[in-house]
Parts: sequence; C-alpha cells; structure tokens
Amino acid sequence: MAVKFAKRMERMQASEIRELLKLTAQPDIISFAGGLPAPELFPIEDIAKVSHDLVLKEGRQLLQYATTEGRPTLRAKIAKRMQEKYHTPAKAEDILITTGSQQCLDFAGKLFLDPGDVVLCESPSYLGAINAFNAYEPVFKEVPTDKDGIIPEELDKILASTPRCKFIYVIPEFQNPTGISWTIERRKKFMEVINKYELPVLEDDPYGELRYDGTMSPTLKSMDTKGLVMFLGTFSKIFCPGLRLGWIAGKHEIVQEFVKIKQSADLHTSNFDQGVADAYMENCDLDAHVKEIIALYRHRRDLILECMAKEFPKNVEFTHPQGGLFLWVTLPKGCSAKAVFAKCIEMKVAAVIGDAFYPNGKTDRSLRVNFSNMPDDRIKEGIARMAKAIKECL
Amino acid sequence: MAVKFAKRMERMQASEIRELLKLTAQPDIISFAGGLPAPELFPIEDIAKVSHDLVLKEGRQLLQYATTEGRPTLRAKIAKRMQEKYHTPAKAEDILITTGSQQCLDFAGKLFLDPGDVVLCESPSYLGAINAFNAYEPVFKEVPTDKDGIIPEELDKILASTPRCKFIYVIPEFQNPTGISWTIERRKKFMEVINKYELPVLEDDPYGELRYDGTMSPTLKSMDTKGLVMFLGTFSKIFCPGLRLGWIAGKHEIVQEFVKIKQSADLHTSNFDQGVADAYMENCDLDAHVKEIIALYRHRRDLILECMAKEFPKNVEFTHPQGGLFLWVTLPKGCSAKAVFAKCIEMKVAAVIGDAFYPNGKTDRSLRVNFSNMPDDRIKEGIARMAKAIKECL
Repeated sequence: MAVKFAKRMERMQASEIRELLKLTAQPDIISFAGGLPAPELFPIEDIAKVSHDLVLKEGRQLLQYATTEGRPTLRAKIAKRMQEKYHTPAKAEDILITTGSQQCLDFAGKLFLDPGDVVLCESPSYLGAINAFNAYEPVFKEVPTDKDGIIPEELDKILASTPRCKFIYVIPEFQNPTGISWTIERRKKFMEVINKYELPVLEDDPYGELRYDGTMSPTLKSMDTKGLVMFLGTFSKIFCPGLRLGWIAGKHEIVQEFVKIKQSADLHTSNFDQGVADAYMENCDLDAHVKEIIALYRHRRDLILECMAKEFPKNVEFTHPQGGLFLWVTLPKGCSAKAVFAKCIEMKVAAVIGDAFYPNGKTDRSLRVNFSNMPDDRIKEGIARMAKAIKECL
Repeated sequence: MAVKFAKRMERMQASEIRELLKLTAQPDIISFAGGLPAPELFPIEDIAKVSHDLVLKEGRQLLQYATTEGRPTLRAKIAKRMQEKYHTPAKAEDILITTGSQQCLDFAGKLFLDPGDVVLCESPSYLGAINAFNAYEPVFKEVPTDKDGIIPEELDKILASTPRCKFIYVIPEFQNPTGISWTIERRKKFMEVINKYELPVLEDDPYGELRYDGTMSPTLKSMDTKGLVMFLGTFSKIFCPGLRLGWIAGKHEIVQEFVKIKQSADLHTSNFDQGVADAYMENCDLDAHVKEIIALYRHRRDLILECMAKEFPKNVEFTHPQGGLFLWVTLPKGCSAKAVFAKCIEMKVAAVIGDAFYPNGKTDRSLRVNFSNMPDDRIKEGIARMAKAIKECL
C-alpha cells in the first residue's frame, strides 16, 4: 500500500495555469491579472470602531460557535439589500451565509454532481468556478456567448441533445472574464429555455452593485417562477474580501441542502466576520461607501479604455464593460495570447491568458484585464507596455 | 428533466440524528449535548483591543484577499506552539490554515476518497468527521478500542484483509466522544502497523492542551518517520470558535494538495480572524488564558464525576477523562440509550445518543456528555435529572 489520492486530484487546476499565475505575482510587475478591490477605499476607521464595540457588546455570543445558516440579523439585512438593490425578492430564512461566494460554487458541485454529470457554463467563464466544479469530476459544456451575453438558442440545442445536465453556471452582469452584461431580451429567452428543461441555475452576481453607466437589467432570480435560480452574492467587492462573506439565496428546499453540506464542511462562517459586516451596515453607510467605489472604478475603467484606444493596434479588440472589474482583450487572428503574455512578463506587465477561462475550447486569442486595483500612472504605464508587447507579437 | 441531486446527498447526515440534536437545543433544557467552550472565559477586552489596533495598523492588507496557505506570521506561531506544547516538529511552510479544523476533515475526504474507498476510524468516533467523510461516499470500517485507546492488533487484521483503505482518522488525546487517551504503548504499536501498511493518518487533536491531570503522551506526528501523519489543530478550544481557525500540519507534498483544494473551496481563511489570533498571541498571554480554561474545566470535570458517582445507579459506567470536553456513559445491558434520551428530554436535560458516533455498529447503550459549558448548579441539577431518567429506564 502507498499514499494514494482520489481520482479527482488529477483534474484539479492544471499546473500550467498555476505556474502562469505565479509569474503575474512577482512584485516588480504591473499586474492587471488579479481581481483585487482597491484597498485604499476600505473603510478602515469604521471597521476598527465597529469591531471593537461589537466584541465588547456581544463577545460571549460573537466568539462562540454559531448556527450553520448564519447570523440572523445579517441574513435579514442581505434579504433587504437584495430587494432594494437588485429588486429581487428573498427571505432571510432562505439565505445561507458562506465563507465567501467561492464556497457556494464548491457546495453546488457537491450538491449536484456525480462523476460524468454535465455542468453548463458561458464560454468563457470564471476560472475559480471551473476549478471548484472540477473537484466533482463533471463534463463541461460551454454555451456560446456574444456581445449581448449567452445565446439561448445554443443553450436549447445543447440541452435537447445532452443527457445528465445538472445545472448551468452564469454571471449575467459584468461577466468574469469578459465584462459583458446580458441584455434583457437574452435574459427572458434564457429563462424560457431554463423553464422548458427545468434546469437549476447558479446566478453568480459579485459585481452587480458596481455599475458605472447604463441601466440595470432584472436578475434571473427576479424572473424565476419555478424556484430554479440560486443567487450567489458577496461582500468582497462592496465591502472587503479579507472578511470571507458570501451568500446563496434560493428555494428553501435547495438552500437547506446547502446548509447540510456547510455543516459538515466548516460548521459555519466566521461569526466575527458576520458580526463586523452586520454592525458596519447598522452603524455606518454602506451605500455611501459603494458610491465611492463606483466613482473610483468608473474613472479607472474610463482611463484604461482611453489608454487602450490610444496605444493598442487598431485590430486589437476589447470590451467596454458598464460595470464590474474586468475587460476582455481579443487579439487579431494569428497573434498568440501566450506569446503576448510571455512578452508582457518580460516587460513587467501582466494579465491573465484568456484560455484559463475555457474549460474545453482554447483559442489562444484573448487576455483578461483587471482595472479596479491600479492607480492612474500604473494603468498608463502598464497599458503602454502591453501595447508594445502586442506590437512585437503581431 | 427535473432538479436532481448527486448520489452523495442520500448519505449526508441521517435525518434521525439531526432531529434528535434539534431537541437538545430547546432553550429550557440543561444540555450536555454540545461541545461548546465556556464563553465566560473568552478574553473579550483583549480581543476588542487587538482587533481595533490591528485594523488601524494594517487594514489595507488585512481586509484584502490573501494567500491560500494563510498568514505567514500566524503559521510561524503555530509551528512554534506545536514544538513547545506538543513537542511535535512542524515547519511554518508545511502548515495550512483552514476555516476551523472541521474543514481539514472535508478536505481529507476530498483528497483521498473515491466512492467505495475505505476510511478507518476508532469505534466510536467524532460525528462531524463521519459526516464530512460521508460526502465522498466511502465505506467505513470501525477499529475496536478499549480504555487504553485503539487496539493496534485489530487494526492490523483489518488492514491485512481490506483493500482500498485510504486513511485512518483518529483522536488519540481526550477522544471525542469517549474522553479516552491512548497509552504510549498503543501509540507505538499503532505507528508500527501504520508504517507496515504505509497508511495515511489524520491525527485530530483539538483538546491536547486541555489536560487536567496525568502526563502527556507523544503525538503520533512526533513519532512519524515516513511522513504519513497529518496533524489537525484548532484555536476553537484554546481561544474561541467563533473565529473559524484550524490548521493542518503534514508532509509538504500532502499539504500542497490540501492548498489546491482550499483554493477552489473558499480561496483562503478569513484574514481578519487570522490577524486577530496572531495579534492576540503577539500582544497578550495565550498561555495564561489556557491555564484559566484548564482550571475551570478541571473543576467542572471533577464536579460532574462526583455527581455521577453519587447519583447514577452503580451499574452505569462512565469514563474519567484526563482532559478535553467530554465523557462517555455506558448503560447496563438491556437499558436503551434511546429510551433514556427520550426520558431525559422529558425531564429537560440532554446528552447525545452514543449511536451517533458509530458509522456502522449501533449499540443503543451509550451517551456522550459534555462538561465544559455549564456552571456548577446546572451540572448538579442536570446530572440529578439524568440519573432519575436512567433509573426510570432500568
């Protein structure tokens, strides 16, 4: 006998991508690779004060084991916020608070997937979701997308011909990695197809509140009449990610299954983190804080788009997201993203190679670029270097 | 098509036990059922102060995304503490900080288990571990134990005749649920068997620092020459469980696999919680705090043993743990633990039915009793009620 791992471990994130991501973390690099919020906006004084007061006021309960479902007053605040900001009905008792919304992805894999089951996702989709689902050994089917979002007719075709589809994972608002938002027409048609096949939907919405222009479309959850949509939210982008706080809101019977999974996975989310977020929302002004974030990120998005328009060769395409943290660069045919990436690293600038976001089909044509984390001068310098790298690879 | 869950969900914690545990949570019940630390000892003022100062001092990093492995200075402190308190060598770089040690159990299942693989554990063993592993659809084999701990000869027999054994899960110190500590002879023989078969070991040690009398035996990890033992530790019992902080320390290559799993499961443990524990250890006196815990729990253990000796019928047996949080009551033959439990609930007192701790074999003869969470008068009254319930069932 010798130490032997489960089969799933062969599939856990390909070492090639891990190695590439490591390159982007070198300290002298201007990195557009991460998805980090701007730390200069974290409301530090407020958090210091509410933490201090909270521990003194209710430390005996706060520091003790707590219920798996989450802090009741925070669940109520989340339900209210979903109603007010997302116009999406949700009841506090149908919300489970998780250790970041990443944990919801892992739990969804655990809840739905036997090896060989099919997960559907947009093409491309969030790398961290692909990795989370991968642990449960599914087959991935990518649904084609365009500038208006997912293409429901293509989804219908896939569902008509594919047995064992267990759920679809989507990010309809400011998608990761492309920054695209689905039009309302696409959302409606998507829900028609979903209802026809009764397919569960994971609607991941980490950036929904960070809209810089345009108008909001309804969430899928708000259009759901059959209890098929599970909405994933997070405090990471509107508050801070170092507190690991996400949530899932869905049909009661499904959320209860998530609760069972959570209980054996980590008992409950940090009660301290939950208390701090709750107390901050109670005593400070989260809406004003989100407004500050929007103003800064809007400025950075405008700047990066301006730099790209000025510096990039005309046959390089890039999306113009109305919100969120990312945009998507598509290189001209024949120009390898891997080659551009290598040249970028040489020039001390980084983005993520787009192929990381495709579970199956690789194109070697795209890069994901983050714009939330960088001051103006670094954005200007970084995009100038990236333009130079691209030109050398054309 | 309709919403369909994975096969594993059929096995996730039997509803019967969930329902019984709910009964113990009624507010008017004296409950020995949980495993809660005494909240009156939480160092509230210190935690309020270190949290406040920490956020002001390093909020920009503290509240940002962080590395999956965990806060470097906390990993270093854990390594030092393992050396000083457990005489167990560990390097900071071979420690992964997790969302409670419960998360290590989930990850071990994910790392090692394909459906049908065999997990070995003591008979009885920790309910939460059984539930965590269950999600990965293993077969459980229980290894017989007695008052000196696991019986290595029985383990040898099982390993000789059982293919697909992937790991063994054990709690050698103040076991949950029995409170028993393995003798040093048993530990040595156990390691011989383990080495013979090269079987990975999860050594769960949540209570090791809470010793009330007797002398400490070496940890399995300190006796490990082949890199087979993974040591699981936690801050829940020596600090506070509302911060979800545990860790795994093991061979570098294995810990790296846990890191991969952690990355897709929840990215990283709350950076805030990690910072607070780190700052508390830096600025306050954790050792003095642990001494207070020991003094209080020793007193409560002595009191509950005294009450049981006085009140229980002579043919009811119970363990005399040298540390930890639990003891184990064995009823006389013919006396049903389920009947006693039902009678206890009627009389507004609760423990956990022992059968919850056996993945396979049920005996209907035992109860787990916690003694860390209850003031003196409640212990006296609770045990008097329990004695009355037992007498009515004899």
